[in-house]
Amino acid sequence: MKKLKLSLSLIAILSTLSYAESEPVNLMIEKAKSAGLSPIPSDKQKLKKLIDNPKNPLSDAKIELGKKLYFDPRLSKSGIISCNTCHNLATGGVDGVSAAIGHKWSANPHHLNSPTVYNAVFAKKQFWDGRSPDLEDQAQGPIQAEPEMAISKEMAVDRIKSMPEYVKEFKEVYKDGNITFKRIADSIGAFERTLVTPSRFDKFLEGNQNALTDEEKEGLKTFIDKGCVSCHNGIALGGTMKPFPTVKPYKYANIGDFKGDKNGLVKVPTLRNITQTAPYFHNGMVWSLKEAIKIMGETQLGIELNDKEINSIKNFLKSLDGKKPKIVYPTLPSVTKDTPKPDAN
Amino acid sequence: MKKLKLSLSLIAILSTLSYAESEPVNLMIEKAKSAGLSPIPSDKQKLKKLIDNPKNPLSDAKIELGKKLYFDPRLSKSGIISCNTCHNLATGGVDGVSAAIGHKWSANPHHLNSPTVYNAVFAKKQFWDGRSPDLEDQAQGPIQAEPEMAISKEMAVDRIKSMPEYVKEFKEVYKDGNITFKRIADSIGAFERTLVTPSRFDKFLEGNQNALTDEEKEGLKTFIDKGCVSCHNGIALGGTMKPFPTVKPYKYANIGDFKGDKNGLVKVPTLRNITQTAPYFHNGMVWSLKEAIKIMGETQLGIELNDKEINSIKNFLKSLDGKKPKIVYPTLPSVTKDTPKPDAN
Repeated sequence: MKKLKLSLSLIAILSTLSYAESEPVNLMIEKAKSAGLSPIPSDKQKLKKLIDNPKNPLSDAKIELGKKLYFDPRLSKSGIISCNTCHNLATGGVDGVSAAIGHKWSANPHHLNSPTVYNAVFAKKQFWDGRSPDLEDQAQGPIQAEPEMAISKEMAVDRIKSMPEYVKEFKEVYKDGNITFKRIADSIGAFERTLVTPSRFDKFLEGNQNALTDEEKEGLKTFIDKGCVSCHNGIALGGTMKPFPTVKPYKYANIGDFKGDKNGLVKVPTLRNITQTAPYFHNGMVWSLKEAIKIMGETQLGIELNDKEINSIKNFLKSLDGKKPKIVYPTLPSVTKDTPKPDAN
Repeated sequence: MKKLKLSLSLIAILSTLSYAESEPVNLMIEKAKSAGLSPIPSDKQKLKKLIDNPKNPLSDAKIELGKKLYFDPRLSKSGIISCNTCHNLATGGVDGVSAAIGHKWSANPHHLNSPTVYNAVFAKKQFWDGRSPDLEDQAQGPIQAEPEMAISKEMAVDRIKSMPEYVKEFKEVYKDGNITFKRIADSIGAFERTLVTPSRFDKFLEGNQNALTDEEKEGLKTFIDKGCVSCHNGIALGGTMKPFPTVKPYKYANIGDFKGDKNGLVKVPTLRNITQTAPYFHNGMVWSLKEAIKIMGETQLGIELNDKEINSIKNFLKSLDGKKPKIVYPTLPSVTKDTPKPDAN
């Protein structure tokens, strides 16, 4: 009888524990979803559908071609800058400097920081002022921009056309084999669409209650309750256009001349892999993630987050560090006598 | 009887054919070896012994660490230039420009062309003036050089030390875990030692008579008979110090101030993957491989190679295009609050 009593007590305790731990977690998952947070789906078919672009359908050959072009420095006038120079896949998809440095060592004239290419597919708009609707359109910009890769559409096409291996690959990907600047950017866009980094947070949102630590769950609660989620939502935890700042001026607003889009809206950066993409904000003036969280509380939410809250949010953000796709470094086609020469001037 | 006669004739013909084709080829292999040409061994143990450095023994962990450092732009003052910027593994191990461009868009002050890192392990000396005995020593140079990566030893060490993942890897590779500038370069050197590219020519030298086409065999004969092999020999088909020019002045000698080592000797570049490493010569003034072959005949051998001979040699050189090792692009450690900031000035 004594034994039975003990067992029953144990069951009662276990039930309580189970209730105390799991029920609120399920509620937390529901709360996160209701607040607008969505997972990168673990279902591959679902994910493929999500990242695909009907106007530029994904194919293995196109992704492989796009990867080569993404890493190809011959797509810059100088021959030494590639997409990967500023959106380095080894360092969180960014260059790790405040303002991008490009052709002839030009700093970005607006003192704009290079956003990460990882998970950029989930953003509703591209560029800090959201002027581009998708990755394919975006990719056309920096290649031509004078302070970035500084090449003309014509020279970019002539460079690629001059290399027989590229000609062959374009034939494989695009029926008629025509090499156009748009197709160069489309191929790069296709590759970029595959650069998604599922994290433990996605497992959590999909129902795995143990995917986050208690500290991270607490952080998620703070993140939602304090209102961060009102801008940082969706799969990207960002990627839409919002006013910035809303309540108080941004303390480094005088660095660079960026004022947002025509309505003063600024693209909300993704928070995925945010621990790897310092420095922060459109002008890259803040190196500390804690300071960035603090500033966001002040400028956007009009609240003074205390140290405990800041640390708590930071704990949650760490759970957004995702698994990078494995990328085999490409062997690029060789130049020929017809390849327009690099020009560093 | 008629049948037997025919068969015997057929055997006789086949024997003749066999003699006509294989015997000279075997002789050609012997001739190539006698002339000082050596294969990259297909035997992995033999190769490992050949590329290893007793003072910096290879290990998988060291090679992996070295790969990360090789691709890490934080080893430059600006934070945006890595070893791979000028010795790009995607483009034949070079940057494809005449003179290297580095920190603050500085052109190499001596107008020197970046040599390929592929198969550099087989060179007897490093740098165009041969001032460095091995890859580990070489790697220390460009990282510090003002017009290249422009970082001080101290800042390089501070950057690496500030990233916990690197600290962990150094502990795995070096017993005491000390992070020193020498060990950074040693690790990079270890990785570079693995960048060898066996080609069809190696199969041929190891006895596979069909590994080269008839045109390539003819080209090899021309290469040997005309005397190219007197400098371009060994496994690297280069990599030793020789006088340049010997007979006639080099037509672009006035570009840059490079005069060789104290004895006027210049490192003979490897010919492996030469079709991928234009532009040619120490000052990168020649874009056409055919022109480079012609100039070599004039300046070094005092002969006018005709078009047939030039094409023949070029055919052989194509057989030196090798198989690149598969390199998974690394995910690099993230910076921390202690990481010295990038400095573009």
